[in-house]
Amino acid sequence: MHETHLSNRARLLISCPDQPGIVAAVSQYLQEQQANIVQSDQYSTDPEGGTFFMRIEFNLPSFEERFERVLQDFAPIADSFQMNWRIEQERRRKKMAVFVSKEDHCLLELLWRWRSGELEVDIPVVISNHDQLRDIVESYGIAFRHIPVTKETKLQAEQQQKEVIDAYDIDFIVLARYMQILSPSFVESFQHKVINIHHSFLPAFIGANPYQKAFDRGVKLIGATAHYITDDLDEGPIIDQEVLRVNHRYAAEDLKIAGRNVEKIALARAVDWHIQDKILVFENKTIIFN
Amino acid sequence: MHETHLSNRARLLISCPDQPGIVAAVSQYLQEQQANIVQSDQYSTDPEGGTFFMRIEFNLPSFEERFERVLQDFAPIADSFQMNWRIEQERRRKKMAVFVSKEDHCLLELLWRWRSGELEVDIPVVISNHDQLRDIVESYGIAFRHIPVTKETKLQAEQQQKEVIDAYDIDFIVLARYMQILSPSFVESFQHKVINIHHSFLPAFIGANPYQKAFDRGVKLIGATAHYITDDLDEGPIIDQEVLRVNHRYAAEDLKIAGRNVEKIALARAVDWHIQDKILVFENKTIIFN
Amino acid sequence: MHETHLSNRARLLISCPDQPGIVAAVSQYLQEQQANIVQSDQYSTDPEGGTFFMRIEFNLPSFEERFERVLQDFAPIADSFQMNWRIEQERRRKKMAVFVSKEDHCLLELLWRWRSGELEVDIPVVISNHDQLRDIVESYGIAFRHIPVTKETKLQAEQQQKEVIDAYDIDFIVLARYMQILSPSFVESFQHKVINIHHSFLPAFIGANPYQKAFDRGVKLIGATAHYITDDLDEGPIIDQEVLRVNHRYAAEDLKIAGRNVEKIALARAVDWHIQDKILVFENKTIIFN
Amino acid sequence: MHETHLSNRARLLISCPDQPGIVAAVSQYLQEQQANIVQSDQYSTDPEGGTFFMRIEFNLPSFEERFERVLQDFAPIADSFQMNWRIEQERRRKKMAVFVSKEDHCLLELLWRWRSGELEVDIPVVISNHDQLRDIVESYGIAFRHIPVTKETKLQAEQQQKEVIDAYDIDFIVLARYMQILSPSFVESFQHKVINIHHSFLPAFIGANPYQKAFDRGVKLIGATAHYITDDLDEGPIIDQEVLRVNHRYAAEDLKIAGRNVEKIALARAVDWHIQDKILVFENKTIIFN
Repeated sequence: MHETHLSNRARLLISCPDQPGIVAAVSQYLQEQQANIVQSDQYSTDPEGGTFFMRIEFNLPSFEERFERVLQDFAPIADSFQMNWRIEQERRRKKMAVFVSKEDHCLLELLWRWRSGELEVDIPVVISNHDQLRDIVESYGIAFRHIPVTKETKLQAEQQQKEVIDAYDIDFIVLARYMQILSPSFVESFQHKVINIHHSFLPAFIGANPYQKAFDRGVKLIGATAHYITDDLDEGPIIDQEVLRVNHRYAAEDLKIAGRNVEKIALARAVDWHIQDKILVFENKTIIFN
Repeated sequence: MHETHLSNRARLLISCPDQPGIVAAVSQYLQEQQANIVQSDQYSTDPEGGTFFMRIEFNLPSFEERFERVLQDFAPIADSFQMNWRIEQERRRKKMAVFVSKEDHCLLELLWRWRSGELEVDIPVVISNHDQLRDIVESYGIAFRHIPVTKETKLQAEQQQKEVIDAYDIDFIVLARYMQILSPSFVESFQHKVINIHHSFLPAFIGANPYQKAFDRGVKLIGATAHYITDDLDEGPIIDQEVLRVNHRYAAEDLKIAGRNVEKIALARAVDWHIQDKILVFENKTIIFN
Repeated sequence: MHETHLSNRARLLISCPDQPGIVAAVSQYLQEQQANIVQSDQYSTDPEGGTFFMRIEFNLPSFEERFERVLQDFAPIADSFQMNWRIEQERRRKKMAVFVSKEDHCLLELLWRWRSGELEVDIPVVISNHDQLRDIVESYGIAFRHIPVTKETKLQAEQQQKEVIDAYDIDFIVLARYMQILSPSFVESFQHKVINIHHSFLPAFIGANPYQKAFDRGVKLIGATAHYITDDLDEGPIIDQEVLRVNHRYAAEDLKIAGRNVEKIALARAVDWHIQDKILVFENKTIIFN
Repeated sequence: MHETHLSNRARLLISCPDQPGIVAAVSQYLQEQQANIVQSDQYSTDPEGGTFFMRIEFNLPSFEERFERVLQDFAPIADSFQMNWRIEQERRRKKMAVFVSKEDHCLLELLWRWRSGELEVDIPVVISNHDQLRDIVESYGIAFRHIPVTKETKLQAEQQQKEVIDAYDIDFIVLARYMQILSPSFVESFQHKVINIHHSFLPAFIGANPYQKAFDRGVKLIGATAHYITDDLDEGPIIDQEVLRVNHRYAAEDLKIAGRNVEKIALARAVDWHIQDKILVFENKTIIFN
């Protein structure tokens, strides 16, 4: 939930083999550091031999002085439980790049939520394979980079994209109806750091033209799916899904128009959870602590 | 919507090539017959060269005396517009047979809605390939017929089912989680007269074990789909779909339990629309006037 | 549903005492005028002695030449059934004024849907009691009029507003989170022509600060209600309502943020229906043909 | 979520003034007892000076031998943090009494979910002020007690009800459309132990005949609210709410019929959470860890 941005708050994310004593060890450690646990969520795939996941939000008085210490001293505990872990500072806002093509509804939803303070993130740059949305992006004070993509120039274009991403020190990428398939090597460089919005209720209607397919099948609900990109097209871990009731009066074009509203809602929610470090990925699924 | 059962009400259902003058011809005819149009719904796939669909509810004073006449005299009008049409009397309740296996949630939902007066239908018989649900069915004063089915005896069993259906003069069949695939010849005999509930948001998770597949894919919504059976498994015209939000804490078994509630809601709604002649099938889709 | 803007299409809206023969008379008349009925919806509060409502969409070939004639010749038919009626041309886009204060989410949703072609309307002017949203409005090429309102100057301000509305020949007004109560005389001048979005699920939480009240009551769903304004504050005919699930973690401020999304969806839908003449008001309720 | 009933599992529920060290103290204590935390949820109204809530599910090997010890030894820790606490054993199923009048849809939903194993509870007795539902209840092997209630005999009747409740050692009561108002003294005896289903989206339409009121107001969604009973009629802590879209075609009677489905869903969910000790009450609100 939204709260005033507290500069002395951090989030600890853990996954490790489940075994007794993890919560006790972590919470005792935090107490010794004089951190106050504000919220904690926990999930285990199986208490016997499963995988344990935890997200703890804590306040740390005298954050500046203490934070590095907290980080260093946690390492041995983490090792003893074979933890995969990280600590994120709330004061350090993530940097998000948005990739778009021509359709603007998802982009504008993100920009509006960003400007209104709903999305506590920085958006230094928008990258597009077309030039149409330059003005609107620049009117928000955000850099716009036009990097055209053709079949022949895809890898070059991705090289340029990577340079921009490096230059702006980007933490994660949102594909806001970016109509290009990223190459395996690009995807690999940003594992669980690229969020896509697919305009169907996956796994229904994988691939191109899902609204036409939904029309042809005569479905009574249309959907949208926000997911992390993997090499397997439309098969990455699902973050959120949303649906909308439709009926026989909707032509394929109407489904597309109606679908925009579920697309932007599902995407914005997924982005918000990513920003707040509420998502843990396990195998090909997400655990969402919200 | 529910209304007191009016014995002088009927429903006219029409589909035909669209052209000017259909509504005028039909409504003028009804007026000449002194019928009063209570509700009318109309849809055209395309005003130019498309297919026209209409459902009219009308009251006919002195129903007994006049109804046959209405039926006869409409034929020439229907012919002139090449109509596919029928008139259903509200006073003549449809006869519905329910096919079940062992799971009872969909059956009980239908029985409860029937007894409460929500479903204005007669249910003379329930047919099952198992004997478990006999007592509960008979406690509702409904005949229960146990017709076991094995791979070898499938066609024989279907022959027995048909005999029961004929004996009870059944109008349509509901597969309330009936875990058998009907043979093409059976399906053909009851075109658009067999409603099935599939336990997924079709076309996602076609085939067996959809909840396991949904679990494996890590979806965030699970669904159910009520549809007419065709020879093409899980590909028949969709009548209704419903979804429910789930999360990572749901094991495959939990998805199954949660799914029961969307299954029974989607199925009951589809059955209700069928009873009230609110569904028209066009190619592989449904037009629903509700 | 969305369709290519057909310049030869019109909508006939009727309400009158129910009696046999209305549909026949209207459809026959349209046929004589060579109009082709594309869609028709009908509702009666009671076939015996109730009120009859109808909306017909028709195509009229040679629209320019014939339209005036259609209009004139319908009058005697309308009279004979005591109809309250109007015919709207699709080619004549309505002119909508938006009233706002400082919050921009509802305004931006409407502007986005307007620019994307979802809302087939003209928006010549936005009127606000504050000056904050001038730039964003003007960037859409829409006039922005700042008319401050205080308790003392309310009637004067409304006089100014009326002048602007007259100058731009406005058909209807949308209060997109306009935080002022309109005077009875203003409301009277625009009966069923002012759409408001109330930030609660009416009739729960009437009046000011509904999100605080919702927080205090501990509700598990929050809502928004789009309605026509009447003299009776928050009591006008409801057009649409939408809800969103919340939980104990939402502070009053979080409810407000989450609520924006249901507000903008409910309002945009209501505006769309109004534009397409899909709403008929009867006593203090709406009949919506969609 | 549903899991195989584990006989060595328990749930610890805590509320206390928030302060640093609570999670550490509790988790360390559990570890010392060799308990393994399977799931934990935590919420604080405010990290500074607010109230802290926690629900921990843990497995305790050698449950029989150890459980009493766990209980005893926790007391001093609880005292040091001024905790309001309890530990519930999963192996000890709660005993639930259902109060009904004549309408059976909520009762049957609960009975079905109980028999199917969805609700892990015992239902020793159903109490009614009418005799109609006796057969159906007894067919489930559940005792049925007919205790008529009139204005004059209300207190006597409640005395009888209490005796039945004592005799069956009931833990909590569900009012499944029980159309009587309980006396303050009865309510006081069962604080946060009586769940009611109100047939509206509270706080809209408080009091009698909510569907008629909803019809008169012309709402576009109808709702149901499950809440704990307090002396303040319809004002107790809300547990769950559910809504359903309706339209102008619904008469008051139709709203009532449609409403049954949301009533039974909201009530069943609330009962399930209560059974699993997922609800904590704070002032007049609920914190739900699900």
